[in-house]
Amino acid sequence: MIFGDAKVSCAELVVIGDEVVSGLILDRNSQYLGEKIHELGIEVSRITTVGDSASTIEDCINLALERSDWVILTGGLGATHDDITKSVLLKVFGCGLKKDLSVESMLEKMFQNRGRDVPPSVKSQCEVPDKAVILYNEKGTAPGFKMQKGNSILFSLPGVPVEMQYLFEKYVAPEMAGKNNKVFLHRLIKTTGLSEAGLWEKVGPIDNLQKKASIASLPSHLGVRIRISVLSESEDDGESRLDEVENYLAQKLSRYIYGRNEDEIEEVVGNLLRENSLTLATAESCTGGLIGHRLTQVAGSSDYFIEGAVVYSNQAKVDRLHVDPKLIEEFGAVSEPVAKAMAKGICDVTGADLGVSVTGISGPSGGSDLKPVGLTYIAVHDRSGTYCKKFVFTQDRIRNKERSAQAALNLVRLRLQEKMEI
Amino acid sequence: MIFGDAKVSCAELVVIGDEVVSGLILDRNSQYLGEKIHELGIEVSRITTVGDSASTIEDCINLALERSDWVILTGGLGATHDDITKSVLLKVFGCGLKKDLSVESMLEKMFQNRGRDVPPSVKSQCEVPDKAVILYNEKGTAPGFKMQKGNSILFSLPGVPVEMQYLFEKYVAPEMAGKNNKVFLHRLIKTTGLSEAGLWEKVGPIDNLQKKASIASLPSHLGVRIRISVLSESEDDGESRLDEVENYLAQKLSRYIYGRNEDEIEEVVGNLLRENSLTLATAESCTGGLIGHRLTQVAGSSDYFIEGAVVYSNQAKVDRLHVDPKLIEEFGAVSEPVAKAMAKGICDVTGADLGVSVTGISGPSGGSDLKPVGLTYIAVHDRSGTYCKKFVFTQDRIRNKERSAQAALNLVRLRLQEKMEI
Repeated sequence: MIFGDAKVSCAELVVIGDEVVSGLILDRNSQYLGEKIHELGIEVSRITTVGDSASTIEDCINLALERSDWVILTGGLGATHDDITKSVLLKVFGCGLKKDLSVESMLEKMFQNRGRDVPPSVKSQCEVPDKAVILYNEKGTAPGFKMQKGNSILFSLPGVPVEMQYLFEKYVAPEMAGKNNKVFLHRLIKTTGLSEAGLWEKVGPIDNLQKKASIASLPSHLGVRIRISVLSESEDDGESRLDEVENYLAQKLSRYIYGRNEDEIEEVVGNLLRENSLTLATAESCTGGLIGHRLTQVAGSSDYFIEGAVVYSNQAKVDRLHVDPKLIEEFGAVSEPVAKAMAKGICDVTGADLGVSVTGISGPSGGSDLKPVGLTYIAVHDRSGTYCKKFVFTQDRIRNKERSAQAALNLVRLRLQEKMEI
Repeated sequence: MIFGDAKVSCAELVVIGDEVVSGLILDRNSQYLGEKIHELGIEVSRITTVGDSASTIEDCINLALERSDWVILTGGLGATHDDITKSVLLKVFGCGLKKDLSVESMLEKMFQNRGRDVPPSVKSQCEVPDKAVILYNEKGTAPGFKMQKGNSILFSLPGVPVEMQYLFEKYVAPEMAGKNNKVFLHRLIKTTGLSEAGLWEKVGPIDNLQKKASIASLPSHLGVRIRISVLSESEDDGESRLDEVENYLAQKLSRYIYGRNEDEIEEVVGNLLRENSLTLATAESCTGGLIGHRLTQVAGSSDYFIEGAVVYSNQAKVDRLHVDPKLIEEFGAVSEPVAKAMAKGICDVTGADLGVSVTGISGPSGGSDLKPVGLTYIAVHDRSGTYCKKFVFTQDRIRNKERSAQAALNLVRLRLQEKMEI
């Protein structure tokens, strides 16, 4: 759901490559550029994706230059035979090639470091359009180009994401920001544990908020992100409007908000553990190791994450975590008593301050009328006791696992933030 | 790298939504459609992504109808105020609205099941363009439309992936296949353990193969996929050409190929374990649970995956897997002797037939001159001994973890397939 947005000038993206139109690869460059350009307060009006056909690429570039202030191409700058962007640019801008000595010496140095000569196929990268300003690429062999036609500025960037992002940040973003006298600011508020509809019900009417900023919400099975953006005369005014909207949302949504912008819940949990000098251990059944995997995506997680037990079989629950086999017999492996025994067990065995456990039926099989697929118990144990929550997730195996891991990390967060009652 | 492709008719996609152009969401629908349509032997010549602007959408649809045999729209069919595709279609095709009684009764039934009336906002979905053939949507509230202009056929589908895919499979794909007298077949060959350059070096010249089929390779940090496709008069001829190319590649690449089409390495490993009635346990340090997570993505993995130990701290390696602390002291936690002791330890402790262990430095910190970031030891243990392999991965923390997990699963596969020597 998007509640309106304000923009200054407009940009178009042209994505080039047979691999993209034929679905062989997923284009993530457009999303990256769409988001970054949006943050600069410039509207992305159109993204056109085309295969490696010279005439189609030419047609797209000409149309984009007519319609838009900014045109950004990605892809087709490699040295292989199917990379034809450069020759199309010569035609569109009516120019020839010249040798760029700086590109040449960069390439020589790069291959010298690898102990070899510049291969003949790569040498062609030194030849650049004679009307282009060169965007020097420290991350790869293909330079980017900046070219102008009338009032429209075109940037041609390589398709390799790391190279594209490097050149965008270094050359394109500063130029776009410089032409834009207004300040565009935005902030992401990240929530979990509420549906999109439930979230807006809790927030209530937002007519007044919308006078301060544009608001958009995006749901996924792991939570809802809210994006607040403002276009303002000054940074101070913009930030204070963002603060006002964020404070209002925080007051309405309180504990459902786990972070903002780039925050991930595993980082938030990690920071809380580190601040409180606490250690964590995991006892995972249906999630199979996903919680440990997520915790260890964070650099430095060895400071607080000491150990995990992936107790997939019942025997493992008994042997490793000392779960009483009678509990499993009486209540089943997917039950509150077993989840609690697992969380307590992992603390006892490892000496961790906090233990989190998950036991559930991910599906597609293993469900029954009494215990449907998606039934999941998550428990958190610490010195003051054991807390358990029941969930019924309703998606496929993979998403049920993902939701379980997200909910488990969130319960650890709540326990640490709120010293939640047991 | 793509070595040429042959196509019959051409299609364009038009993706509609502010959320997509502003980078709030990643568009995966285009990749899905690009791949499916490519498989039908139809070329996707252009994908245009636009925001929720009526005039831009109208312009895109008109251009696409002029240029292409097939036009597929996704998005903008919801009942909220920003979903405007339907009103644009009325303008493009010069028609009005009519009420569709089948849509009405489907919606009534759907909301009856939820115990509520059809909300007023959703009721508007019963109103459909009077020149459209209706694509009935069993997965959601927005019907799709099929409309014709001259020789071009347009399909308008909702943006929600599950609804879009349902309508594409049910209505669009059969119609596209029916218009196409040739048979288009393709096959994916999946490899790991070789770079793209290394792979083609091993294969050697492929000029003769290219006369049989089109060949494309796509590298990622987890391996290289090769796509072989043919356009043929008959299915028999097509399949035999695919077989011929696949057999040639299999002979050249042998053990580097782990599967084809939808195969994932965790499934291949699971099937091998099940066939041999063997059980597996994991001992993970730097991968933090990722191997267990991947193994348990496969339904039925409890048949062979019994347990995992995420031994992130040195103490956990000693306590849980009985790794001799002297080994850690003498060689360090990231070393061949410790990896081997972990793999043997997890088998001893759990009684599993096979154990796989990973210990490495994922980064960004923790590296040294002697033991750089990315250094990783992976060991596999079974009754006949313990095998260990050293890797030096050179990417960031997250990709180093992913490569380690992939390599670990691959070593288990090789051990099972080849009874690899120790």
